[in-house]
Amino acid sequence: MTIRYLTGITPSGIPHLGNYAGAIRPSVRSQHVADVDNFYFLADLHSLIKSHDPLQTQRSTLEIAATWIACGLDTDKVTFYRQSDIPEIPQLTWLLTCVTGKGLLNRAHAYKAAVDKNVAAGLDADADVTAGLFMYPVLMAADIMMFKAHKVPVGRDQVQHIEMARDMAASFNHLYGAGCELLVPPEAAVDENVATLPGLDGRKMSKSYRNTIPLFTPREQLRRLIMGIATDSRTPGEPKDTEGSAIFLLYQAFASAEQTASMRQAFADGIAWGDAKQQLFERIDEEIAPMRAHFDELMAAPARIEAILRHGADKARAVAAPYLAELRHAVGLRELTLLGAAPETAAQDAPAAPAAVPLIKQYRENDGRFYFKLTSAKGEVLLQSKAYAAGRDTGAAVKLLKELGAGALAGLAAQLEPYEATPALTDALQALVLAEQGQQK
Amino acid sequence: MTIRYLTGITPSGIPHLGNYAGAIRPSVRSQHVADVDNFYFLADLHSLIKSHDPLQTQRSTLEIAATWIACGLDTDKVTFYRQSDIPEIPQLTWLLTCVTGKGLLNRAHAYKAAVDKNVAAGLDADADVTAGLFMYPVLMAADIMMFKAHKVPVGRDQVQHIEMARDMAASFNHLYGAGCELLVPPEAAVDENVATLPGLDGRKMSKSYRNTIPLFTPREQLRRLIMGIATDSRTPGEPKDTEGSAIFLLYQAFASAEQTASMRQAFADGIAWGDAKQQLFERIDEEIAPMRAHFDELMAAPARIEAILRHGADKARAVAAPYLAELRHAVGLRELTLLGAAPETAAQDAPAAPAAVPLIKQYRENDGRFYFKLTSAKGEVLLQSKAYAAGRDTGAAVKLLKELGAGALAGLAAQLEPYEATPALTDALQALVLAEQGQQK
Repeated sequence: MTIRYLTGITPSGIPHLGNYAGAIRPSVRSQHVADVDNFYFLADLHSLIKSHDPLQTQRSTLEIAATWIACGLDTDKVTFYRQSDIPEIPQLTWLLTCVTGKGLLNRAHAYKAAVDKNVAAGLDADADVTAGLFMYPVLMAADIMMFKAHKVPVGRDQVQHIEMARDMAASFNHLYGAGCELLVPPEAAVDENVATLPGLDGRKMSKSYRNTIPLFTPREQLRRLIMGIATDSRTPGEPKDTEGSAIFLLYQAFASAEQTASMRQAFADGIAWGDAKQQLFERIDEEIAPMRAHFDELMAAPARIEAILRHGADKARAVAAPYLAELRHAVGLRELTLLGAAPETAAQDAPAAPAAVPLIKQYRENDGRFYFKLTSAKGEVLLQSKAYAAGRDTGAAVKLLKELGAGALAGLAAQLEPYEATPALTDALQALVLAEQGQQK
Repeated sequence: MTIRYLTGITPSGIPHLGNYAGAIRPSVRSQHVADVDNFYFLADLHSLIKSHDPLQTQRSTLEIAATWIACGLDTDKVTFYRQSDIPEIPQLTWLLTCVTGKGLLNRAHAYKAAVDKNVAAGLDADADVTAGLFMYPVLMAADIMMFKAHKVPVGRDQVQHIEMARDMAASFNHLYGAGCELLVPPEAAVDENVATLPGLDGRKMSKSYRNTIPLFTPREQLRRLIMGIATDSRTPGEPKDTEGSAIFLLYQAFASAEQTASMRQAFADGIAWGDAKQQLFERIDEEIAPMRAHFDELMAAPARIEAILRHGADKARAVAAPYLAELRHAVGLRELTLLGAAPETAAQDAPAAPAAVPLIKQYRENDGRFYFKLTSAKGEVLLQSKAYAAGRDTGAAVKLLKELGAGALAGLAAQLEPYEATPALTDALQALVLAEQGQQK
C-alpha cells in the first residue's frame, strides 16, 4: 500500500542553512522512497494569521517555492501546491469546525501560550489573540485530511495538532460514518534526529537569534558570513576542539564521513581558524552553488513558479474535489433530486416520485472470473470492479457497498477500475443503501 | 442606488403559520420594492452546527426551499441559493477569521448563553460547545459581506452579529484597504412590528411550545387543528372578547380590515366558537390552499428545486467569485507573476524581469466627451469608462485608480462599462499602484 506523506511549508521569511539541513534537504531526499506519495504545500492561508503585509505574503510564497524547487523537489513526481489554490480546504474546515469541541481548541499549546503571556502581563486572556490563531488546528486538520494523508512529518511541538486532527476524524466518523473511516486519522511522523546547525554566534541557528546564514546569499556574502563565525582564540598550530565547535559542526553537516574525519584530524593538528573557515566555505558553496543558480533563475521567472504551483493545484484538486463531494454527501449537503427515491421523506400528502434506482450487478466473464458493476438509473456505468477469483468475494463487496455506500469505496479501491467520484456516484450509492434499508424493514 | 438586502433562512423543521405570517409573507411581499436587490439563501452550513442527521438536513433544505417558492418568492427576480453551493463563502470565512479578535467572539450572546448554562449546571464552561457555535458569527459575516449586502433583515437577537460583521469589515479594511471599503459594513434592518401569532394553546406559536399549525398541512388536518384551538367557555349568543382571543388574532392576521371589522362585530354579537373557528379556517385556507398545491407539486419534483437553487448559485457566484479574487489579492494571495514588475521584490542578485506594465489612457471622443480605459500589457481592454462631461473628472478617476487600485472600483462602478473582475484586472491595477508609488519615491 502506498503511504501518503503531507508536508506543510509556511511561507515566512527567507530560509537559512539551518532550515535547509534540518527540513528541506531531508524532505527532498525522501521524495523518492518507494511506495510513498508525497504532498507538499505552501501554507499561505496559515501565514495570514500572522502576516498582514500582502506584498510580503506574495514575495515569501515565491521565495519559498523557488527555494524548494531549487533544492531538488521533483514537482512532476510529488504534488506541490499552494494551500489557497484549493477551495475545498476551507470548505472541509467548516465541516470539521462543526464537529470540533471548543474545549479541544482551548487546550492547544500555541493558543495557551498566548493566553499565559497575556495573563502574566495582566492583560485580558484573549488580548490580541485572533480567531485565526485559535482556529489554526482546524485548518491544519483540513489540510491533512483533505488528502487522506497517512503521515505528517512534524516537530515535537506539532504532535498535539495531529492528535487533534485524529480527534476530529473520530468525531466526524462517529457522527456521519456509521463507524467507517470517512476521514482518515493521520499520524505524526516525528524525526527525533533533526539536524540543527549552529549559527554565527555558536548558538542554534535561528531567526530569533539573528545569527543565521541565508541559504541563497551570494557566494561572496556567504564567504564573509562564514569568516565571521565566532571561534575561540587558539592560534594556528594549537590543537583545536571539535566538540562544540560551530565550524566543525557546520562542516560535518555538509561533508562526507571521510571529509569529516580528515577535518577532525586537521583540528587535532592545529589548523588555523581562517583555513578551517575557508574549507568550510568551499564545502558549503560546492553543495549550494548549483541550487543558488537555479534559485536565481526561478526568481527571475515567477511565471514558471506560478505555472508549477497551478499544475500542482490541479493534481491536488483532482483528489480533493471528488472526496469533498463524498464528505458533503455524508453530512447531508446533497442533491435534492435523490430525495424522490426515499419514500419516507416525501411530503405527507404528495405522491412519492417514482424512484430512480441504480443497479448493481454481479456477473461472470468468459475468463471464468467474477465481476460486479454499478450502473446509474440512466444506464451509465459508475463503478466497474476488477476480476475476483470467487463469486463470494464479489458478493461480499456488493454487500459492503449496500451497507456503507460511499463509505465502502476507500476499502474497495484496490479492487475497482479507476472511477470518477462524482456526486452521481455518491447519490447512486446512497440510493442503494436506502433501498437496502427499505428491504430490511 | 440599489440597496441589496440579504436574508438567511435556516433549514430546520417544517415552517408553521407563525413563520409564514412573521417572516415569509412580509419578506416575499417586499421582493418587488423598487431599487432593492434581494438575496435569499438557505443557510445549510449553519444548520450543520446543530443537525448531525444528513437526511434531515437534505429534507429540510428541500422543504424550506419549496415553502419559500410556493409562498411566492420570484426566483427569476431575486437571487435564491444554497449557502453550501458557494465555495467562496468558506474562503472568505477564513480571511475574516484571521482579522477577528477572539475576544469579540467570546462576547457573542449565543455562545455566552451556552457558557452560562454550563456554568450554572456546574459543568466546564465549554462543555458540549462546538467550534461551530463559536465561529457562527464569522460565517454569518462572510455570508453577508461576500455579496456586499447593505441591509440584513434580522430579529433583535441577531443585531449583535451584524455589529460583529461591521467590526470585521473595519478591521479588514484597516489592515488591507488603506482606509477604503474593501468590505462593505452591513446594517441590520430590524422590523419592530414582526407579526406574532398565537398557537393552539393561546401562547405565542412556537416550536418550543409544541403549539404550532404547520403551514402546509392538508386541508382537513388544518380544519381539525383550528377546531382544537383553546377558547374560553362562553356559549353561543354570549358576547366574546376579541382582546387576547387566539381565534380573533389569527383571523386578523389573514383577513382584510373589513373582514376583521365584521368579525369584531360577530364577536360582540355572540358568534358561537365553532362558527368563528369555521370562518377562521375558511379564511386561512383560502390564502394557503393555492400555495399548498404549489408546495405539493414542488415536493414531488425535487429536481425542479435543485435546478432553481443551482441557477441561483450561478447568479450568486457571478458576484462572489470576482469579488473574492479582489479580496484575495488585497491580502496577498496573488499571482506570483506580478512580482516581476515590482523591482524591490527581485532577488538580491537576480536581474529584475522586465516589467509588463498595463496602460491607463484618458482621451476625448468625437462626441466631445471624455473617457478613460485601462489596457493590459498585452493590449486587452480591462476597463472602459462611460462618458464624462469634463476632462478633470476622468483625471480624478484615474488618480483614484492609481492610488487605490482595485479598491477604487466599487466607488467608480457607476461610471464604468460592465467589466469582468478577473485576476488580470486586479493584477493590472496593482501594477498601476506600484508604478505610481515607484514614481513618487
